[in-house]
Amino acid sequence: MELLNDEFYMQLALKLAGGASGQTGVNPVVGCVVVQSGRIVGMGAHLKRGEGHAEVLALNMAGEEARGATAYVTLEPCSHFGVTPPCCERLIAEGVSRVVVGAVDPNPLVAGRGIQRLRETGIQVDVGVLEAEATALNEVFNKFIITGKPFVTLKTALSLDGRIATRTGHSRWITGAESREAVHTLRHRHNAIMVGVDTVLADDPELTTRLSVPGLHPARIIVDSKLRVPETARVLNDAAPKLVLTTEQADATKIDRLRGLGAEVLLCGSGARVDLAAAMTLIGERSISSILLEGGGVLNGAMLEAGLVDKLMLFYAPIIVGGVGAPSAFAFTGPEEMSSALRLNRVSMQAFGEDWCMTGYPPGKDAADYTGATAYKEEN
Amino acid sequence: MELLNDEFYMQLALKLAGGASGQTGVNPVVGCVVVQSGRIVGMGAHLKRGEGHAEVLALNMAGEEARGATAYVTLEPCSHFGVTPPCCERLIAEGVSRVVVGAVDPNPLVAGRGIQRLRETGIQVDVGVLEAEATALNEVFNKFIITGKPFVTLKTALSLDGRIATRTGHSRWITGAESREAVHTLRHRHNAIMVGVDTVLADDPELTTRLSVPGLHPARIIVDSKLRVPETARVLNDAAPKLVLTTEQADATKIDRLRGLGAEVLLCGSGARVDLAAAMTLIGERSISSILLEGGGVLNGAMLEAGLVDKLMLFYAPIIVGGVGAPSAFAFTGPEEMSSALRLNRVSMQAFGEDWCMTGYPPGKDAADYTGATAYKEEN
Repeated sequence: MELLNDEFYMQLALKLAGGASGQTGVNPVVGCVVVQSGRIVGMGAHLKRGEGHAEVLALNMAGEEARGATAYVTLEPCSHFGVTPPCCERLIAEGVSRVVVGAVDPNPLVAGRGIQRLRETGIQVDVGVLEAEATALNEVFNKFIITGKPFVTLKTALSLDGRIATRTGHSRWITGAESREAVHTLRHRHNAIMVGVDTVLADDPELTTRLSVPGLHPARIIVDSKLRVPETARVLNDAAPKLVLTTEQADATKIDRLRGLGAEVLLCGSGARVDLAAAMTLIGERSISSILLEGGGVLNGAMLEAGLVDKLMLFYAPIIVGGVGAPSAFAFTGPEEMSSALRLNRVSMQAFGEDWCMTGYPPGKDAADYTGATAYKEEN
Repeated sequence: MELLNDEFYMQLALKLAGGASGQTGVNPVVGCVVVQSGRIVGMGAHLKRGEGHAEVLALNMAGEEARGATAYVTLEPCSHFGVTPPCCERLIAEGVSRVVVGAVDPNPLVAGRGIQRLRETGIQVDVGVLEAEATALNEVFNKFIITGKPFVTLKTALSLDGRIATRTGHSRWITGAESREAVHTLRHRHNAIMVGVDTVLADDPELTTRLSVPGLHPARIIVDSKLRVPETARVLNDAAPKLVLTTEQADATKIDRLRGLGAEVLLCGSGARVDLAAAMTLIGERSISSILLEGGGVLNGAMLEAGLVDKLMLFYAPIIVGGVGAPSAFAFTGPEEMSSALRLNRVSMQAFGEDWCMTGYPPGKDAADYTGATAYKEEN
């Protein structure tokens, strides 16, 4: 049984926010609940970039009842003019008497200023209710707004012995239907999906979101140093935005032809292989804040080794493939000493049918690395 | 909150039984609770082979109060004269009016006869309360009593990408202190521990049970086709029973020297490598009902491929080692098609500190394969 308290309303606001996960573009997901004398009078979530913020939608619903009410907001209300006017001013104008905030907005343009502004006008502001959940909800936004680079979730299906195919290269299917449904949910929740050209050549995948309900299709990013992607590839011939990552050595004619198909071709470095770190900067500049990396062992290994992966979701099927020559999920050289192996943090497990999904975060990719909350707390 | 019902008392009986896991040799673990008019009047568990059964100890405690009482027993009371007289007769003599049984005894000498005997004398017998738990508790006994061969638990520590060492062979430590404590608990719970001679040569391990409380040390089984084990190895120079598995090709002089150290040397087949299936029969004949297999990739792979592993416990550290050349947990050839990979059943996960232990069972190693309960139910 849930108890009626600040956490109860914040939990509801988090649920509202989470529902819109994947549909706010580079914006954070935010939920808001307005409570007047023991009754919920307004609810809202930020639904689409450029449209109303959670507080505005909830206050619209509350109408006159907002006066003297408490507003629960998962993220600090904004204090600056962005695409829409600042939510702080709207809360003040409506006469709200108390605001409960989940997490401080790490956006350098806000970062405590929203809370400060509300307090200046005499509104009681309580910060940090379900803060960990509120911060985790916006792990993508928190990284993007601080660094300008996309948050990368590496997803792979693998056997219990770490293989992504048998020794003959056979790989379909490793995991079951429930895991694949989870992967399509992840596609809905990410701005873009990233694969190596070898995957396109081998499988000609659609890389769309296919669920029992309609989902959003991610933009496609293809890592293709030598521009081997066929112009007939399915991923190049549908409506989704497409980026092809290559190098300055790439053939100019092929670049033109790909651009003719509507693909954006990014020249990432002058080397023989795509400079993945440079690519992340270029991708971020194109307002892609999250990438679902569905690479093979080599691309996954390279991204991991370059420190460009923010989160791993490993879907283990309950199978053992055997070790001699079968491709590994992470094909990189690796350290000499066991103590130097890449150690993940915040590891958790979730069952999907007969499979298990292990979620973890590489070092230096903790929530605290991408939040303005710490700085704000130290100041105040 | 636990509710007071048959399951409550059976759960308590299971707990009593589980406490003695590892100390009953080839015997099953059994717990018993005697309840008279709403009060527990007796509790017992089988503690040591050749000594009192659970029912006898619980009835001793109950004394006169056993008359008209209900006895909860995790395993069907025995009906035959073994090392001790049949428990059925003791329950009848004490005037117990109801017996609640967890699981039918798969021992062909019992297998429903105990229940039948009790019912013949007018005692009410209810069978199958918490049956799955009661059956799982005796997975070792259930296999051994039906097949005469030891139950093999394969335990390994590995990285998330299925490696047991780095590319340089460095392996200490993969998992953390909590996982290692779990492994020593497993050693206490198994009659024997099995390793390859390469492990002895590389690490000269003690293979003892080291916990914060005293534990039982397992017998040692060393797989050593060429008899390369040094006579100075620690495992050959302490009080625990030791078996060396080799072949008929092994050097007779070395065999004699090892026997002089107190080791039993078993000649398993005439081939160049130890015939592992033959070895299991010989080991079973020596009253070893359970083996904790702590092999390297090759021995683990060979045992798995030969269908000799009953249960896997994979301790995953939250680390990624990298794929190029680092030894795999299961070094065997493996299938061509993903659908032919070895698929585990009844997979579960448990956290140990920062590590996760995956427990699963290979095909054909399900509880139902080693239980007399099915046959009994069909008959009755």
